[in-house]
Amino acid sequence: MRVILDGMGGDLAPAEMVKGAVQAAELIDDEIVIVGEKKQIEKELKKNRYKGDNITIAPASEVITMHDSPVKAIRQKKDSSLVRGLNMLKDGEGDLFVSAGNTGALIVGARLILGRIRGVDRPALASVYPDMKTMEPCLLVDAGASAESKAQNLLEYGLMGSIFMEKAWGRENPRVGLVNLGAEESKGTSVTKDAYQRLKASHLNFIGNVEGRDVPKGVCDVIVCDGFVGNVILKLTEGAALSIFSLVKQAITENLKTKIGGALIRGQLMKMKESFDYEEYGGAPVLGVDGPVMKMHGSSTATAVKNAIIRGIPYARENVVDIIRNEMLDIEVVEEDYE
Amino acid sequence: MRVILDGMGGDLAPAEMVKGAVQAAELIDDEIVIVGEKKQIEKELKKNRYKGDNITIAPASEVITMHDSPVKAIRQKKDSSLVRGLNMLKDGEGDLFVSAGNTGALIVGARLILGRIRGVDRPALASVYPDMKTMEPCLLVDAGASAESKAQNLLEYGLMGSIFMEKAWGRENPRVGLVNLGAEESKGTSVTKDAYQRLKASHLNFIGNVEGRDVPKGVCDVIVCDGFVGNVILKLTEGAALSIFSLVKQAITENLKTKIGGALIRGQLMKMKESFDYEEYGGAPVLGVDGPVMKMHGSSTATAVKNAIIRGIPYARENVVDIIRNEMLDIEVVEEDYE
Repeated sequence: MRVILDGMGGDLAPAEMVKGAVQAAELIDDEIVIVGEKKQIEKELKKNRYKGDNITIAPASEVITMHDSPVKAIRQKKDSSLVRGLNMLKDGEGDLFVSAGNTGALIVGARLILGRIRGVDRPALASVYPDMKTMEPCLLVDAGASAESKAQNLLEYGLMGSIFMEKAWGRENPRVGLVNLGAEESKGTSVTKDAYQRLKASHLNFIGNVEGRDVPKGVCDVIVCDGFVGNVILKLTEGAALSIFSLVKQAITENLKTKIGGALIRGQLMKMKESFDYEEYGGAPVLGVDGPVMKMHGSSTATAVKNAIIRGIPYARENVVDIIRNEMLDIEVVEEDYE
Repeated sequence: MRVILDGMGGDLAPAEMVKGAVQAAELIDDEIVIVGEKKQIEKELKKNRYKGDNITIAPASEVITMHDSPVKAIRQKKDSSLVRGLNMLKDGEGDLFVSAGNTGALIVGARLILGRIRGVDRPALASVYPDMKTMEPCLLVDAGASAESKAQNLLEYGLMGSIFMEKAWGRENPRVGLVNLGAEESKGTSVTKDAYQRLKASHLNFIGNVEGRDVPKGVCDVIVCDGFVGNVILKLTEGAALSIFSLVKQAITENLKTKIGGALIRGQLMKMKESFDYEEYGGAPVLGVDGPVMKMHGSSTATAVKNAIIRGIPYARENVVDIIRNEMLDIEVVEEDYE
């Protein structure tokens, strides 16, 4: 395997990207190509005292920033690390592309350069959602690639998420749940009602509707929703968790007695807070584009980069893209049956 | 003022409804009419040793349960406490209707019996959302009366919520925020983009888009979203809070040291958990129907009933319904300007 890493994407690039690549390179036999400004990357490799032979550099002179308009950036910055990296993946110069860069640009770029998998109407951005009971990662699809979805898109999200979780991350017979405002089949918008029927008619392990209160409890492995709702779920969970932690902190510092109490449970609370850390999972796949792409958080540090590379490799190795392509053919039949 | 209380609605009716009415009656000079099965309510009043003269009973022989289909129940159970109570409000036999009964039936009943305020396209169910920073209540509209909303509906939710918060609950110049997947004006679905423009053009104190992560931080007094997203926000917040509390509990009971630590901060944690308790707020208004209606949680106990009555009275006393009616006329003009 040859992993293509966007060396210039993300708030902490190139330093943390290179450091993460070095950490990953020590753990895997696969090759890593870092795309970006050659001199800067060489400097960072030196800083990290990298002596191995499985990291190479592919030069790219431009950088797409977080402030760039996605479509414009992809069209104009042809020699950016993001555009170059995607082209390398397309041309077979690598097997997986990993980036912490501008999310919109990455999705637009992947659609334009790699193209969609035949049969997929709309690619999706997945995100890891921590099951707060077992602390195992669930996959939420779509995390915001599209603001609006049709019923068929939701079916595709369920299918692609299920294949990824099973093949890439080894989750057996993944449970797929549809976010809705009630558990009953008859609940929801016209789109979710229609999606329910399509998911039910598919061969997926569809467990039915999932209400907001069940989402954090890990009742399913693949959480299906449109990108608007997905965005709200991810950010609200983050916001609520942070607010509650700061309330706990406030409670602990109230007086001497509680301060002593707080000191005694400090280690456990820190461990708990860490388990919410997205860096553990590194990144999540862009699904439905014709090549394996992993998206990292914009503020990813070396740990996230290392984990995204390691957790991304099976996306390429297990041929998830090909499997999705084959399954889309079946889905098309199911859809015709249903209509 | 004369408060009409649905004596038979809710999981704990009539016992907790009557108990809550007795508690409220001790604190207010207003009259309370409990609608329901006469003998059962008399029995409960006796149990509570009620000796005052501001509680009366209006008999109703039927009960709409949580399992009844809303439309069917309203049409067929004409002598239910819910239908009778709404008719009493309509006929001027009371000034406010408070119920913990079947939410769907209450909304359908209010629409059919009271009717909509002229100019309001779609009534909404509000819900209290606790600001986790100040622990002051915010109002989320819509909490699930409609699964889908048009841009004009979202404007109406903002307007009605703002009037309620200002007039009934004394919040000065309430800040209105629109739930969206990004802070920028250009973000979102076609509906939220349109709603943004309508809210901006209105005289409301519109602070712009609010992302999921900001919702728990109390950045606004009125949180505007469609009923699908509102339902997900409310239930997800509840689910995430419960999950995090159980993680904290787990952390505390890990070993002897943490158990001692836990014992020292127990009081503070309990207080914190209580501040999430919806019973403190009692209930939230149904907005846009032609009469003040307060909806309580289905599992409300006496405390919630007492608080819903006390916090509901200003909804009637401050003529919130009339103010909404007048303001709807202005909004119609704004809408024409915008289009």
